[in-house]
Order: sequence, then C-alpha cells, then structure tokens
Amino acid sequence: MITPFDDAYYMRQALQEAELAAEEGEIPVGAIVVWKNRIIARAHNQTERLMDVTAHAEMLAITAAANAIGGKYLKDCTLYVTLEPCTMCGGAISWSQLSKVVFGARDEKRGFERLSPNVLHSKIEVVRGIMAAECQAVVDDFFKNLRK
Amino acid sequence: MITPFDDAYYMRQALQEAELAAEEGEIPVGAIVVWKNRIIARAHNQTERLMDVTAHAEMLAITAAANAIGGKYLKDCTLYVTLEPCTMCGGAISWSQLSKVVFGARDEKRGFERLSPNVLHSKIEVVRGIMAAECQAVVDDFFKNLRK
Repeated sequence: MITPFDDAYYMRQALQEAELAAEEGEIPVGAIVVWKNRIIARAHNQTERLMDVTAHAEMLAITAAANAIGGKYLKDCTLYVTLEPCTMCGGAISWSQLSKVVFGARDEKRGFERLSPNVLHSKIEVVRGIMAAECQAVVDDFFKNLRK
Repeated sequence: MITPFDDAYYMRQALQEAELAAEEGEIPVGAIVVWKNRIIARAHNQTERLMDVTAHAEMLAITAAANAIGGKYLKDCTLYVTLEPCTMCGGAISWSQLSKVVFGARDEKRGFERLSPNVLHSKIEVVRGIMAAECQAVVDDFFKNLRK
C-alpha cells in the first residue's frame, strides 16, 4: 500500500520550514502540526525577526494550530519538528496535550528528553530520528556558513 | 534606610496582575519585569482569552520586556512572578538570560525546580517565597470560587 502521508512526508514539510528559517538568518528549525492528515500550522524559528527568545518554531506552531482548531488543546494533533524540542517547547507541548510528537535530530544539550522527571505526559507518543541526518545537516550548514 | 523598591514591593505589583487575571476568569498568576528599578513589563495569565496554552504571565512578560528594551536578552532584568514558573516558563527564562527570578508560591507539581539537571543556568539568581502566602491565597481563592 502506498502511504504518501507518513512521518517522513510530514518531516519533509517541517524541513522546508527550517530551510526558510536559514534563508532568513534564523537558526534553522521548522515545525508543523498535523490534524487528520491535514497540515493546520507551519512555522519556523523567528527569534531574530521577532526579537523574542520565545519565538521557537514549536511555540509558533502550537499557537497557530490552536487558532486553526479554535481551541487551546491539540488532543488529536501531531507535531513534527526538525530538532528535539528544548525545555521551553517541551513544556509547551505538555500543556497543549498534543497526542504525538515526532522529531528529527536529537539535541543532547538543550533537548527536553535530558530532563527528569519526564517533561511530557507518558500518554504523549514520541517518535525520534525521522530524517535525523537531513535535519541535523541544515543546522550544521547554517553554523558552517556563519563562521565563514 | 527606607527601600521602597524591595522584592516585596515588586511582588505586590505582580500580585495585582494575578488579581486582574482572576477577575478575567484566568488562573491567577501575574508577572512583571524590572530593569534598573523600573517596571518595563507587566502581564498576567491569558491562556483562556488568547486560547493559547503558551500565554502564561511569564511568557507574555518576557516578550513585552524584550520589546521595551529593544533586544531579546534581558540580562540586567529581574522577573517577579507570583507562582513558581512551570517547565515551559523556566525554559523561556533560561533563554532570556534574565539575571534574577523572584517567585512567590511554590508549585511542587509543575514548577521548574523539580527538574534535573537544573533548568536555569547557575548564574541566574533565584529568590523564593516572597509573599508566598498571599500569592498562594489568590490561586486557592480562585479554585474555591470555581467549585461553588
């Protein structure tokens, strides 16, 4: 069976957002929110443009998804994000009651999974490492270009 | 020496914000940001009004303070908040590089201080328990009225 709308498909959409961020001089992280196979929010990191440390891709995507749905809880939604969410975004994911989080590259230094006790409720499904190499490469390329 | 602008003075300002939240049917948490003895941002929880789980008092105050200062880092600023910040807000405080955080009541269930390793950089000064009883009372009263 052909399943065009698998995790890799959606992660590619998040990766497109990350690439947009890079073009704008933002640390390239992208996120989308999917509800019933539909993308209801897409966002990329905008901390520089908005001059706001809270403007991570995940935060903007969660806010946009709540607007799209007309309610603050994202119970049947999945968040795709190219990089493991940080502490702040992990906390926001927890509040949002997303049912599933899929991330690409791991962030050992700032990712929420380093924290104990678990930041996310055990009912939230977490899928790791989808297109991890591509998601990491866009970050590595960004910092390589910065140092040039 | 009379010092009108001590931690209790500023916490009272945060508490006024919490009381505004309660009047609006929001879980009553208030926050202010102070820079050189000046209040540059004040905010209260608006998750219901904005229909956005990320709209905690601290998040709104951090965003507003960055706008007031004209830069995303709040290096010489102090955040006063009536309740111990949650995981999300602890992460945001960390990103913002605030120099000091003062909170009133403890939040044992959701507060950032339950997490390990420490969410905040060790350079950020944390002061706990300023007007804790008053800050807790405004939350307790809110939930008592809800149950009526």
